[in-house]
Amino acid sequence: MKNPSLNDLRSWYKAHENEILKDYFSFLKIASISTDLAYKKDILKAAEWVSQRLQHIGFKVDLWQTQGHPVVFASYEADPLRPTLLIYHHYDVQPVDPLEKWQSPPFEPVLQEGYVYARGASDNKGQCLNTLTALQAVFDLCKKVNLNIKLFIEGEEECGSRGALQMVQEKQAELKADYVLIVDMGLPKLETPAITMGLRGIIAMEIKCTNSKIDLHSGLLGGIALNPNRVLIQLLAKLWDAEGVVTAPGFYEDVTTLSPAELHEVSQELDLDYLREQFGLKAFQGEGDYTLWESNTIRPTLEVNGISGGYTGAGFKTVIPSQARAKISCRLVPNQDPLKVVQCVMEFLKKHLPKGMEMEVTHDHGGKPVRTSPYTKLAHLCSDAYAEVFGKPCKKIFGGGSVPLVADLVEAAGGEVALVGVGLDSDDIHAPNEHFGLKQLELGFLTMGRILGRLMAC
Amino acid sequence: MKNPSLNDLRSWYKAHENEILKDYFSFLKIASISTDLAYKKDILKAAEWVSQRLQHIGFKVDLWQTQGHPVVFASYEADPLRPTLLIYHHYDVQPVDPLEKWQSPPFEPVLQEGYVYARGASDNKGQCLNTLTALQAVFDLCKKVNLNIKLFIEGEEECGSRGALQMVQEKQAELKADYVLIVDMGLPKLETPAITMGLRGIIAMEIKCTNSKIDLHSGLLGGIALNPNRVLIQLLAKLWDAEGVVTAPGFYEDVTTLSPAELHEVSQELDLDYLREQFGLKAFQGEGDYTLWESNTIRPTLEVNGISGGYTGAGFKTVIPSQARAKISCRLVPNQDPLKVVQCVMEFLKKHLPKGMEMEVTHDHGGKPVRTSPYTKLAHLCSDAYAEVFGKPCKKIFGGGSVPLVADLVEAAGGEVALVGVGLDSDDIHAPNEHFGLKQLELGFLTMGRILGRLMAC
Repeated sequence: MKNPSLNDLRSWYKAHENEILKDYFSFLKIASISTDLAYKKDILKAAEWVSQRLQHIGFKVDLWQTQGHPVVFASYEADPLRPTLLIYHHYDVQPVDPLEKWQSPPFEPVLQEGYVYARGASDNKGQCLNTLTALQAVFDLCKKVNLNIKLFIEGEEECGSRGALQMVQEKQAELKADYVLIVDMGLPKLETPAITMGLRGIIAMEIKCTNSKIDLHSGLLGGIALNPNRVLIQLLAKLWDAEGVVTAPGFYEDVTTLSPAELHEVSQELDLDYLREQFGLKAFQGEGDYTLWESNTIRPTLEVNGISGGYTGAGFKTVIPSQARAKISCRLVPNQDPLKVVQCVMEFLKKHLPKGMEMEVTHDHGGKPVRTSPYTKLAHLCSDAYAEVFGKPCKKIFGGGSVPLVADLVEAAGGEVALVGVGLDSDDIHAPNEHFGLKQLELGFLTMGRILGRLMAC
Repeated sequence: MKNPSLNDLRSWYKAHENEILKDYFSFLKIASISTDLAYKKDILKAAEWVSQRLQHIGFKVDLWQTQGHPVVFASYEADPLRPTLLIYHHYDVQPVDPLEKWQSPPFEPVLQEGYVYARGASDNKGQCLNTLTALQAVFDLCKKVNLNIKLFIEGEEECGSRGALQMVQEKQAELKADYVLIVDMGLPKLETPAITMGLRGIIAMEIKCTNSKIDLHSGLLGGIALNPNRVLIQLLAKLWDAEGVVTAPGFYEDVTTLSPAELHEVSQELDLDYLREQFGLKAFQGEGDYTLWESNTIRPTLEVNGISGGYTGAGFKTVIPSQARAKISCRLVPNQDPLKVVQCVMEFLKKHLPKGMEMEVTHDHGGKPVRTSPYTKLAHLCSDAYAEVFGKPCKKIFGGGSVPLVADLVEAAGGEVALVGVGLDSDDIHAPNEHFGLKQLELGFLTMGRILGRLMAC
């Protein structure tokens, strides 16, 4: 058995580059949008695609059917005396609207000046491909892989992981592992190696205000029919004060902060100039007196992700709509409970709802926040692998995003966890023209290969 | 020459009913949506349709080309010593969304249990057809029509009347008239004759808040990127206090109210139970201490007709949108000036806009409010015609709606004005399943016929 060195991996990658890209494109062509049931067929196609790739490498694959989309669960049993690694990915992607802002169709990947453009190119198909490729390389290069490996690849990360959570609860025995790698994270910059110490939780809700059966004429009934647009606007506006602090009582109640020692371990950089340049971002606002870095990572948020009501087409139409709707979501930090937070917000809205106006609030089950220790064996091993591949010390960072399932998955596995990946803020995930660099494809592969190598050697 | 009596008109209507309905349907089939340039061809088709009908009756017709949609101007010269009547209509209609709420396609009229369903069935094609039919009857029944008649039928009523206003300014001589009939009004109930004493003015504006080039990931940038949805919501929410009073300084500055004597002349009924039943309307709110009737008729309003930002499709998408947009409009009363009101609102929004957020406000040129006297010869004549047809005294009411051009048109004509029509609040104008009753078609025809008859006799 040979434990593949960085050079072995580099050579293998060079020899297989065309094949890898071909594979990547075929994965990206599948429109596996999980939030919209119209794409159910594509979701199943993506699950099938991942299953076949894993079988081809040498894994035993099960498709765990859920009330939502299936989980691809794969396992390779080397030796019961050796440690077990569980790797997490998701094969589903975000919706694509606004479609008109894409420069090429979201499910027809194109390679342009070193970047592959497609929905999912980064989140999470690119990163998932990195793991699949690294596994393929390690299985190719080693006669016998000296590590038990499991993969849990879900299809509901972008829509609340309801079915996947059901699997985590039902399949506790299958999910036991000494080490868990969540490969859905990013780097501060392409040249900066880093592992992630925390993820925010999330809860999403939809609010509908209704005051009539049909849209009303704003002349005939203007001035007397309470406008659902106005009510929803005034309700939501009350949710923050002028300093961006959420006003719903209890919202911050369970928030725990980092100790000075922990804060010292962490890179607190936030490159505003980069954000201005990359996104054309103009106005920043954090939460009250907290720094922007704190507001972005270790503090919870409440955002209106979508609002709609009345006429929004060309020109003007003077209606009072029958209904106005908003989608809001909160990013949560330890030890906030998603359902308790949604309760705070719902109670606040109900309290301020004008008499007579009908309001309906629905919500998903959310995902808990995750915070990992920088002192575990796995954290050190991953840091070292990143440092080796990138040729410089590995930073410790926090992610502002969420992977709803992670907290429950890690609890079920029971082992040490590391949050890793080679995504970049500039990948435009969840936005038009999502992309992933060929450089990221290679660095992600090499890092995963070296993490596997180091785990085999331990 | 015979001045047609009510019985003559009734007999004529009975003899021509099928023909009238056929005519009506062919008019309704034209998708003359003026606010959306995609329908330009249909707009021209509708103008052509009206022109041909008028030529067929015996009018000389000009198509006045404007920078917007054309005005159909028609004239019949009886005798320079006789009075001149100018009649106003519009051949354009509102957009049709939400299309999915229509029970039959909006431009495929259907007759069902005494009602014709189609966009424009009431507003204003139904009412316009009533005038065309009444003119046809009068020209049929009288050997020589003893009245100079002009028609001004615009195609921009539903989109701000920009080009029509240009015509009103350029063609002052052609528009001179002793009497002006604006036939775009309604009755409190089908069995209640009424003429309208005032119309509100209108101004519409669109507000866009932008903070980035692309939609952002609410995890990666949540808590630090100021969300345009939040900014727009909080800006608009400030526009009213908790009692529904508009807070933008100067908004109410020029408002004139009615004298006690004028108020005494007017029917101040407002049937809330009917509105609850008809529209499923639940929550009412007027302006501060004003009654609902006052708030609905003689007080100005500010409404959010449309708002949109971020993801509004199925499920959830956790974005911070690059832009949020709202369409708002104000109904105005004497002596408010549309452009001064828009200025108040714009200044208020600008004052409260957070630093860095980009805001763009655009607006149309608006329409001035109109108030008419109940003491003119024309007001008495119209009241008497309504009373004769309906068999009961004619009420004096106020309309909450607007016909942007009317104030300028009346000023150009220089004569007495009456605001008439047989629309009903229950016609669902500007909403899905707009409709007009066969009863309204006949009553509108008879009333217009008798107004023409009485004018010929004076």
